[in-house]
Amino acid sequence: MNDIPEPRCPLCHEDGGELLYRDDRLRIVLVDDADHPGFLRVIWTAHVKEMTDLTVADRAHCMAAVYTAETALREVLRPDKINLASFGNMVPHVHWHVIPRFADDAHFPNAVWGERKRDAKRTLPAGFREAVATRLTNLL
Amino acid sequence: MNDIPEPRCPLCHEDGGELLYRDDRLRIVLVDDADHPGFLRVIWTAHVKEMTDLTVADRAHCMAAVYTAETALREVLRPDKINLASFGNMVPHVHWHVIPRFADDAHFPNAVWGERKRDAKRTLPAGFREAVATRLTNLL
Repeated sequence: MNDIPEPRCPLCHEDGGELLYRDDRLRIVLVDDADHPGFLRVIWTAHVKEMTDLTVADRAHCMAAVYTAETALREVLRPDKINLASFGNMVPHVHWHVIPRFADDAHFPNAVWGERKRDAKRTLPAGFREAVATRLTNLL
Repeated sequence: MNDIPEPRCPLCHEDGGELLYRDDRLRIVLVDDADHPGFLRVIWTAHVKEMTDLTVADRAHCMAAVYTAETALREVLRPDKINLASFGNMVPHVHWHVIPRFADDAHFPNAVWGERKRDAKRTLPAGFREAVATRLTNLL
């Protein structure tokens, strides 16, 4: 593991979204994605490339954050599906995409990185940030 | 959780690839993907839609399988990156994609569901299946 920020890694230097939760090992941010409002990202604080570069305890904490983000999205948005992904091809610093998916969203049933299927306007319900942030703080 | 197979779910009725490992809760298969040889899939046996529909112990076992698949791929193929993803938009039955990525593969740095970048021929080294299956059995 490497606790020293990488000079050119954006996730070492910026929150990467609107901060909803932070603890001593990770943060959870709301991503600004017009097609997929409610898209959350769990970002490990230290510059680590792969999940298996983390200790077993740290992997468990990272996934607890992913599951808590999933639970919060399920409770607040009632999506048709949750998508989870950790790639890091462009930014090799552990981060998880936690995406609420709806059968009528812009890419469904494709991955959000796949072919766009339709224009779809969706907006977050009032109080979304507070409802999610409260759940993240209480459950994690 | 639902231990009854769903009539129309392919993952309830077929292995979904070449079987490399199976235990009482999940299996790991080698996917037939010419662009991404070595693509593994961890498939939960029971028809469960979301990770948070599993018990905490079952989530941990599922992710232990994902990490073991990642470790096996890293040791045997030395990829530039590992990609992990659980979508289930088309087949809502918990399964994880564990994909070895190379800087010169057909889609890099895009997700394998994204825009194709180049033609790239890559073949698995001799003994790949045995080397991975041995690690899965010994480590999981």
